Amino acid sequence: MHSLHFTADTTTNGVRERDFTVGGVPGVLWSPESGADRAPLILMGHGGGNHRKSPAMAGRAELLVTGCGFHVAVIDAPGHGDRPRTPHDEQEIAELFRARAAGEPEGPIVVRYNAHLAERAVPEYRATLDALQELPEIGTEGPVGYFGLNMGTAIGVPFVAADPRISAAVFGLHWPDALADLAKQITIPIEFVLQWDDEHIPRESGLALFDAFASKEKTLHANAGKHKETPRFEAHNAVHFFARHFGRTS
Amino acid sequence: MHSLHFTADTTTNGVRERDFTVGGVPGVLWSPESGADRAPLILMGHGGGNHRKSPAMAGRAELLVTGCGFHVAVIDAPGHGDRPRTPHDEQEIAELFRARAAGEPEGPIVVRYNAHLAERAVPEYRATLDALQELPEIGTEGPVGYFGLNMGTAIGVPFVAADPRISAAVFGLHWPDALADLAKQITIPIEFVLQWDDEHIPRESGLALFDAFASKEKTLHANAGKHKETPRFEAHNAVHFFARHFGRTS
Repeated sequence: MHSLHFTADTTTNGVRERDFTVGGVPGVLWSPESGADRAPLILMGHGGGNHRKSPAMAGRAELLVTGCGFHVAVIDAPGHGDRPRTPHDEQEIAELFRARAAGEPEGPIVVRYNAHLAERAVPEYRATLDALQELPEIGTEGPVGYFGLNMGTAIGVPFVAADPRISAAVFGLHWPDALADLAKQITIPIEFVLQWDDEHIPRESGLALFDAFASKEKTLHANAGKHKETPRFEAHNAVHFFARHFGRTS
Repeated sequence: MHSLHFTADTTTNGVRERDFTVGGVPGVLWSPESGADRAPLILMGHGGGNHRKSPAMAGRAELLVTGCGFHVAVIDAPGHGDRPRTPHDEQEIAELFRARAAGEPEGPIVVRYNAHLAERAVPEYRATLDALQELPEIGTEGPVGYFGLNMGTAIGVPFVAADPRISAAVFGLHWPDALADLAKQITIPIEFVLQWDDEHIPRESGLALFDAFASKEKTLHANAGKHKETPRFEAHNAVHFFARHFGRTS
């Protein structure tokens, strides 16, 4: 088992931010400044082409930490952030940019490449969770959530299907092709975000992925607008969702 | 113009409840106990077979009054609550119960009868809003919202389409047949609630009504479960929605 190494520790506006590595994978853990009381953990997954400390990740973490007192952790996906790209990564990214420039559909490439990244990332997420649960302020007793859209859903659905420690999750903004069969194995409460006028993911495809989850409690949040126009208030909704399931006020 | 007559005034747990009539139609106005400061008004519409002070109405009002400091008003729909039924009301209700007992679809009867009730109710809602805006603690300057599901949507969609004073609305749980063309005239921010496994309203029908709204900002909340299983947290979501649009914390 890989252990966790902290590499930096700063505190800003009541949020403690600790950089770490687990088995060479860089991550970040955001926590309430005050107290070593045990609190639930939310693992997050960043979007494609992004990294663990992107504004979306830091912004959501701040809401979860200051609003609910949760711990929040993100790791760089393979080929993202501070991690090297393989020749296969370079090839797929070049292919995506080529398709985008040519006005061809991105879906087939994103679906295929994200499924490949998920195979690499799922064991890393599981090892990261093992290591984070060794920390006294997290432990193995408290609930663990997962929050990731776009590529964060491509990685998160197989991760959550494989790891029974996750007890509530927010997903969204992905095609069902590589994920629907895994979603059928997932029964935990789900909040699922999609864009009603998504120019990349057909409406029926997004609805099909939501429909696939076996969860008795699942909620779809569909907003008018294009792929990148998910309203900021969905981050607040996700905070309310985790607060409701993990018994914290927000 | 009909004026407003208060008929009762009580206060419980910080919520002032005033019964009123406007043109003979009974209504209730819930307000914060403290202060005569002007505050936004949320008009609500109750569900079929229900009345202005049903638990759903009182519960949502309490959240909106104590959470946001809003005024909240509901009137009894025609043939509902303290209002007499016409022979036509009796006939349609008998037909609904007959279809239900026979295991026939309720949709065609509900759609037809609710459209009839809406024709009677819309002028009553407009007159009630006229009268409520005469109160100094409401006035004509502040924003007005509308919140109604089921029959509350059957009445609310034509009301909101007709009355430019309404600037944000929560709808849901209805068929598109009599409403979609009116929804296409509505451009204000909308939150729309439906049940993913509704045994009365086909999924495609619910999605079609959401799709019809011309609003640039609209959000669909679809929850797993049957027609009557809308989760209670959707009331909280509606409060957050109005708080966001009307600039109050919740």
